[in-house]
Amino acid sequence: MADSPEPSRSDADEEIMQATYRALREHGYADLTMQRIAAEYGKTTAAIHYHFDTKDDLLVAFLDYLLDRFQAAARDVDTDDPRERLDALLDNLLVVPQDHHDLLVAMLEMRSQAPYTDAFSERFQQNDSSIRRMLVDVLLDGIEAGAFRDVDPDHAARALMTVVDGGRTRAVVHGDTDALAAARRTAAEYVAAVLIADDAED
Amino acid sequence: MADSPEPSRSDADEEIMQATYRALREHGYADLTMQRIAAEYGKTTAAIHYHFDTKDDLLVAFLDYLLDRFQAAARDVDTDDPRERLDALLDNLLVVPQDHHDLLVAMLEMRSQAPYTDAFSERFQQNDSSIRRMLVDVLLDGIEAGAFRDVDPDHAARALMTVVDGGRTRAVVHGDTDALAAARRTAAEYVAAVLIADDAED
Repeated sequence: MADSPEPSRSDADEEIMQATYRALREHGYADLTMQRIAAEYGKTTAAIHYHFDTKDDLLVAFLDYLLDRFQAAARDVDTDDPRERLDALLDNLLVVPQDHHDLLVAMLEMRSQAPYTDAFSERFQQNDSSIRRMLVDVLLDGIEAGAFRDVDPDHAARALMTVVDGGRTRAVVHGDTDALAAARRTAAEYVAAVLIADDAED
Repeated sequence: MADSPEPSRSDADEEIMQATYRALREHGYADLTMQRIAAEYGKTTAAIHYHFDTKDDLLVAFLDYLLDRFQAAARDVDTDDPRERLDALLDNLLVVPQDHHDLLVAMLEMRSQAPYTDAFSERFQQNDSSIRRMLVDVLLDGIEAGAFRDVDPDHAARALMTVVDGGRTRAVVHGDTDALAAARRTAAEYVAAVLIADDAED
């Protein structure tokens, strides 16, 4: 997996994604407009519409972009040890976002609109299942290697994502990045007490 | 706590809260208007404004109403056994909502607005801290009785609420009430593996 190529993306797309990121952080989702994204991009809205028909199309592409970045970060983890890989994934999910509170705020707004916006709903489900698949792969490797108990890897991945999503929601609702640290600690407790085999080497 | 009186609430208030509940379930938060609540109430908007100045005032009262109902249900639990009380609290938090998906949808919309609406933010924080206090009380009783390990009860309560909030967010974003069942199972695993003392009686 470490030698997979980066997803190809044109410079314009990358710049538009960066502009969307800045506009979302500054204005939140409800007040996000193509004008505000264009202002961050430093070009006209027509220049954005050349690439994306609607704001929702652009935001769906932005969700893909976030997943690409997450997957690239996960590929960069420089170890084959299943426990270390699981820790690194959980750090990417719960420690890295501690520096991106405004993005969490905008993402929770978008998530809360998933029941009303099919395109968001599909993408959130796809992204969740991609990340769960990464967790399941690590868990299966670890079960085979005797580093983890013979648990149900699908449920364990879902359990860890429940803790991740809980920490992120709480960070936004309570305006409190400590919520992410508490969730990271909870995930570590779950890994140590539920997943790690009694007779596994430390 | 079992002999505390029910919070007093006039019949009109109760009817307005029920109307708000139905209007939120039907229209969601973004499309909720005083007209729609009045339509469910079967009276004019003036009749509601007599009790609540603004829609946000009414919604803050509605959040109090939900907490009152939760606390009343928790008082009704007919056991002093700490493990059974903890299970009953977790059932109230993660099993009961399985029949109220539309309310979860509306609540996540309101929660996502907490960073922009101080009145919601304060109330969500107060409600969360009330529920965590109930969890801490049960945990302290259980630690004293030897039913739980000598854990940090504040963190353990936060960990359980992280799982609760994660399950609720995932149920909404993925349109999937199984997310609540997965969260309930995760909470049970956390209780069994992290909280329950090795040498405690079953």
